[in-house]
Amino acid sequence: MRPYVFGIDLGGTTVKLGFFMTDGTMLDKWEIPTRKENNGFAILPDIAASIRAYLEEKNIALSEVEGVGIDVPGAVLEGGVVNRCVNLGWGVRPVGAELSELLEGIKVAVVNDANAAALGETRYASKWNNAVLITIGTGIGGGVIINGKIVPGAFGAAGEIGHFPVCDDETELCGCGKKGCLEQYASAEGIARLAKKRLSETSVESVLRSEESLSAKEVFDAAKEGDMLALELVEELGQMIGRAMAAVACVVDPEAFIIGGGVSKAGPILIDTIQKYYRQYAFHASKETAIITASLGNDAGMYGAMHMIID
Amino acid sequence: MRPYVFGIDLGGTTVKLGFFMTDGTMLDKWEIPTRKENNGFAILPDIAASIRAYLEEKNIALSEVEGVGIDVPGAVLEGGVVNRCVNLGWGVRPVGAELSELLEGIKVAVVNDANAAALGETRYASKWNNAVLITIGTGIGGGVIINGKIVPGAFGAAGEIGHFPVCDDETELCGCGKKGCLEQYASAEGIARLAKKRLSETSVESVLRSEESLSAKEVFDAAKEGDMLALELVEELGQMIGRAMAAVACVVDPEAFIIGGGVSKAGPILIDTIQKYYRQYAFHASKETAIITASLGNDAGMYGAMHMIID
Repeated sequence: MRPYVFGIDLGGTTVKLGFFMTDGTMLDKWEIPTRKENNGFAILPDIAASIRAYLEEKNIALSEVEGVGIDVPGAVLEGGVVNRCVNLGWGVRPVGAELSELLEGIKVAVVNDANAAALGETRYASKWNNAVLITIGTGIGGGVIINGKIVPGAFGAAGEIGHFPVCDDETELCGCGKKGCLEQYASAEGIARLAKKRLSETSVESVLRSEESLSAKEVFDAAKEGDMLALELVEELGQMIGRAMAAVACVVDPEAFIIGGGVSKAGPILIDTIQKYYRQYAFHASKETAIITASLGNDAGMYGAMHMIID
Repeated sequence: MRPYVFGIDLGGTTVKLGFFMTDGTMLDKWEIPTRKENNGFAILPDIAASIRAYLEEKNIALSEVEGVGIDVPGAVLEGGVVNRCVNLGWGVRPVGAELSELLEGIKVAVVNDANAAALGETRYASKWNNAVLITIGTGIGGGVIINGKIVPGAFGAAGEIGHFPVCDDETELCGCGKKGCLEQYASAEGIARLAKKRLSETSVESVLRSEESLSAKEVFDAAKEGDMLALELVEELGQMIGRAMAAVACVVDPEAFIIGGGVSKAGPILIDTIQKYYRQYAFHASKETAIITASLGNDAGMYGAMHMIID
């Protein structure tokens, strides 16, 4: 194997570029803006130009690079073809072939962003071979790793745990078009939505009433200070996530659940509550599944994308 | 590869033995009773004796047999070690090593019975590489196939879809020790239990009132004749299974769901109802997942166990 490899995390705002040794060691990382105008026409040329400029600066030839792994915020089909990235303005697009052509035919692997994060976390952080990553951020995403490999799903939808059907009488729409998805309640937006609803429905005292813009962070901060309404909301979120994880365990029975995303920064109050409910709902054989927080943070995608080349 | 292979399905009442060519063609099958007395001491010697007698009768040497695949009604750990088969009186037991020793060191593969059925169905019947088998019988079991291979789970509990947590206010215990598992409502026993409950709670007319012993079959037969209460029960079962399958699709997003088990003999009324609710609850990308009935019936375990040797 050649000595170097790139791992790239293509997001809706920035592109994160990571430069690695092919033993998995990160040497450098930087960001460029994601130019979404004109249906994201410039995105791949920008990435190729950034790679070329970096290599030139370091006096490294492209022929010393084993390949480029890149993750995208959308479904990925066979052969590195991306099937719609709404955030980027992309329709069906052969990202693997296009990026490779821009870089003299270099090997390119394309992977969904949540799946890349799952692969990155399991490879770098914990060495689990069978694990499920659940990212609790604005929404809820996830990735499933079986035998050390991403499970992409027949329609690119494996790990879409945020769209578990959990409530039959929801009236508001989820971003996916359904009603009653897990992420409508247990994501950062979900818990903020529930907090506002609860505050408007009851007159119970809560420090949350004085917050101008109520977000998940305020709810967790208030819960840590003992605010009853906030504590109830955290219990509710923990119960919903824990119960969904118990269902996930009935399907793939992983060695570990890895909890990532912005909400995971709430720390032990979140993980302990999730674990309590997970154990309550889990099938007996799976009660002791490890539940840990993600450790790579925003670098997980770069690591995972890079592993698509070196594994 | 040698020309012959055995696939054995070890159940609580009978052992089903299948004799195959190593191209997967079944040549013969027969059954022997499962002798459970003395903690199932005689089971493996009985199987070995049956295999030897059969080969002797057919004038085939053991050296012409590639191996023996055997499925068991319990969790299987690494190396063919079985971790409790309550129905057989077995605790932790190195079934692979024991059966191999009884047959001159032949290659033996041990697999969970639901997983074997899933492998058998996907290999023989439909050639799916990514599929989930759901068996709706007395209880609800299942198996998950990813990239053509069984997903056993870290604790042998993958595919235990019958133990999805679906109801928080159930008062009766499931066989697994939890309350509110899917199979308490949507299995053959579950639907019979719900039917009795509904009959005792309401005074609505139903042909089910005249049934002496009410089973799932009577409920489906009555539904096919238009009995309103029976139709409602079938809708409820279809909704529960369809919703659970939508959650399964959010985890592994299979190409197909294969519905097996005794209840699947109800035919289109069951599959159509499941499909209607599946599509209602499924994430948009996975709405068109194939839903088919199993085709190998009681032979699925033998086929799957055999494939553990020849794959």
